[in-house]
Amino acid sequence: MKAALPPVEHVPVQTEGGHYTILIGGGVLAQPASWADLPRAAHAVIVSNTTVAPLYADAVAGQLAQRYTRVSRVVLPDGEAHKDWTTLNLIFDHLLAEGCDRKTVLFALGGGVVGDITGFAAATYMRGVPFVQLPTTLLAQVDSSVGGKTAVNHPLGKNMIGAFYQPQRVLCDLDTLATLPAREFSAGLAEVIKYGPIADQAFLGWLDTHLDALLARDAQALATAVRRCCEIKAEVVGQDEKEAGLRAILNFGHTFGHAIESGLGYGEWLHGEAVGCGMVLAAELSVRLGHIPAAYAEHLSHLIERAGLPVRAPALGVQRYLRLMRLDKKAEAGEIRFVVIAAPGRAAVQAAPDALVEAVLRTHGGA
Amino acid sequence: MKAALPPVEHVPVQTEGGHYTILIGGGVLAQPASWADLPRAAHAVIVSNTTVAPLYADAVAGQLAQRYTRVSRVVLPDGEAHKDWTTLNLIFDHLLAEGCDRKTVLFALGGGVVGDITGFAAATYMRGVPFVQLPTTLLAQVDSSVGGKTAVNHPLGKNMIGAFYQPQRVLCDLDTLATLPAREFSAGLAEVIKYGPIADQAFLGWLDTHLDALLARDAQALATAVRRCCEIKAEVVGQDEKEAGLRAILNFGHTFGHAIESGLGYGEWLHGEAVGCGMVLAAELSVRLGHIPAAYAEHLSHLIERAGLPVRAPALGVQRYLRLMRLDKKAEAGEIRFVVIAAPGRAAVQAAPDALVEAVLRTHGGA
Repeated sequence: MKAALPPVEHVPVQTEGGHYTILIGGGVLAQPASWADLPRAAHAVIVSNTTVAPLYADAVAGQLAQRYTRVSRVVLPDGEAHKDWTTLNLIFDHLLAEGCDRKTVLFALGGGVVGDITGFAAATYMRGVPFVQLPTTLLAQVDSSVGGKTAVNHPLGKNMIGAFYQPQRVLCDLDTLATLPAREFSAGLAEVIKYGPIADQAFLGWLDTHLDALLARDAQALATAVRRCCEIKAEVVGQDEKEAGLRAILNFGHTFGHAIESGLGYGEWLHGEAVGCGMVLAAELSVRLGHIPAAYAEHLSHLIERAGLPVRAPALGVQRYLRLMRLDKKAEAGEIRFVVIAAPGRAAVQAAPDALVEAVLRTHGGA
Repeated sequence: MKAALPPVEHVPVQTEGGHYTILIGGGVLAQPASWADLPRAAHAVIVSNTTVAPLYADAVAGQLAQRYTRVSRVVLPDGEAHKDWTTLNLIFDHLLAEGCDRKTVLFALGGGVVGDITGFAAATYMRGVPFVQLPTTLLAQVDSSVGGKTAVNHPLGKNMIGAFYQPQRVLCDLDTLATLPAREFSAGLAEVIKYGPIADQAFLGWLDTHLDALLARDAQALATAVRRCCEIKAEVVGQDEKEAGLRAILNFGHTFGHAIESGLGYGEWLHGEAVGCGMVLAAELSVRLGHIPAAYAEHLSHLIERAGLPVRAPALGVQRYLRLMRLDKKAEAGEIRFVVIAAPGRAAVQAAPDALVEAVLRTHGGA
């Protein structure tokens, strides 16, 4: 079986805030080479959650024990509902109780929530310590672990408190995707699909053909998808680390999506589910703005549905959506700015009349 | 009277994280030129505290109203005891309730606590918004408002959670020092005196001669002192923004000082008072390490006492001091690293045997 595993792929990321490599492959966490040349320190801290720690923390600790004098663990409660200051403080309390100094290396072992919150802890503990991403979900491997966006949620908005802070390395072990629950896997596919309409029409075609293989967790298909997503993301954040412009296209589906998450209460829908539905809405908006034919949006919506994602928006009411989206980080002077499909495989950011947004929501269940 | 005011001095600061100017002079806050060419936005937010806001917030709001459509205020409780997450969250709550976007400019109007906490809010709100420092205490003007160190305290250690994040500009209005309570003014003198032994022996001589003029709040003496301190600090942080090495010398007296603040409970002694006493201890340590003659340390201690600062350490006990100092951000692998006077006007960072530290504490009241 080992021989059938895909080789380890290396995707470089180059930003002003740091240069690092994403390693992608089956068994990456178990390979000593994956851990070579990380920053030296007395202390390494694994930050994980109650779901992931029992599966992989021992193996990771075994690797780290060969490189760090002291290896300790913080296990956080699982889920988006816990991506807040209270949970962040569990990390700070641990680091201070253990006497961790500013060379201490944090290892974020888990999905997007663990990665975002650990990254923000690393960005701010003693004004910054190094950290490494060990993403164990599809969503984290293709999106959140790459590019240095870290954050916690505020009751009034998602990811409102955070920092741009790059990891030292990202280790995407494809083996961890084998045991991922179907709902989580589908949520990750939302961020995979995202890259097609905004940046790579050919990849969207590939997804059409290989979606069933991905859903069957085919190792080769997973390797191809994770690598291509990381390449696109690395290219975008390399050009615009701090989202002065271009990087915003990675938020396709997220303006509607964040409103859904916040409106329903964090954790009700998974982030990827909200993004999946958000992409349906954003594609519809792109049609109504005259950028793409209706058939393109319908095709995309069908792919999203095939991936096991919701395509009908929760009925929060138009005014609630608009109010929540005015708090979106892309909004300026109260004007909501949407990522739209400007043409197949190309995105743009623009405002849209409220009446058009309302029509989109009425068409897809949100009103 | 106006004619007697010193002219506005410009001190440039150049770091990787940003280039900006410190403006120093009487009436700087009232001069339209001080506010020209700041980042444009719909919204400006003044963050101040219950002591400072009644004195200057209206005047600042008047200046800002000419440049921003909407100007709002957050008034924090006053004092080091409130430099925590709860107070930080008052700022986030305000920003989100007001619908502030990521172009919003924050203006930190107050002393070191207001500057540090507002800077950290700016560093992390929506992953970073611009901010301007308007320091109204001597300590903030000569030290904390310059160089981009932002933070809040954690119950287990001072400034443990923070970021390096540079302001857009610093406006040091010397007129605000006229009404500063004597205790606060003395606390600021601790950070002024600091620059002599670590970086500028001639400045220490100037201080010896001009301390009485400073204590009398002489405008020309204040202008000279604030400018020289800002120049030294700008030079140091320009070389080492993120404290990889050199910048640590600015922490002279702070290793002992932070232990005093944390050991007594934040707010019991003012930060500058703890630093003043900490410099006496650090100078004694430098003597015992053989770097400087005892007479140098005695002279420095006398100057610190003349400035109205405590020179006898609170009796927390040697073990308590050692335990608190092992949490210092300069500590590595459990070894405390002190800023010492390597020679008159020159500092170095080094470890010291516990026995020597104990002897220092026994000599000066800390045991």
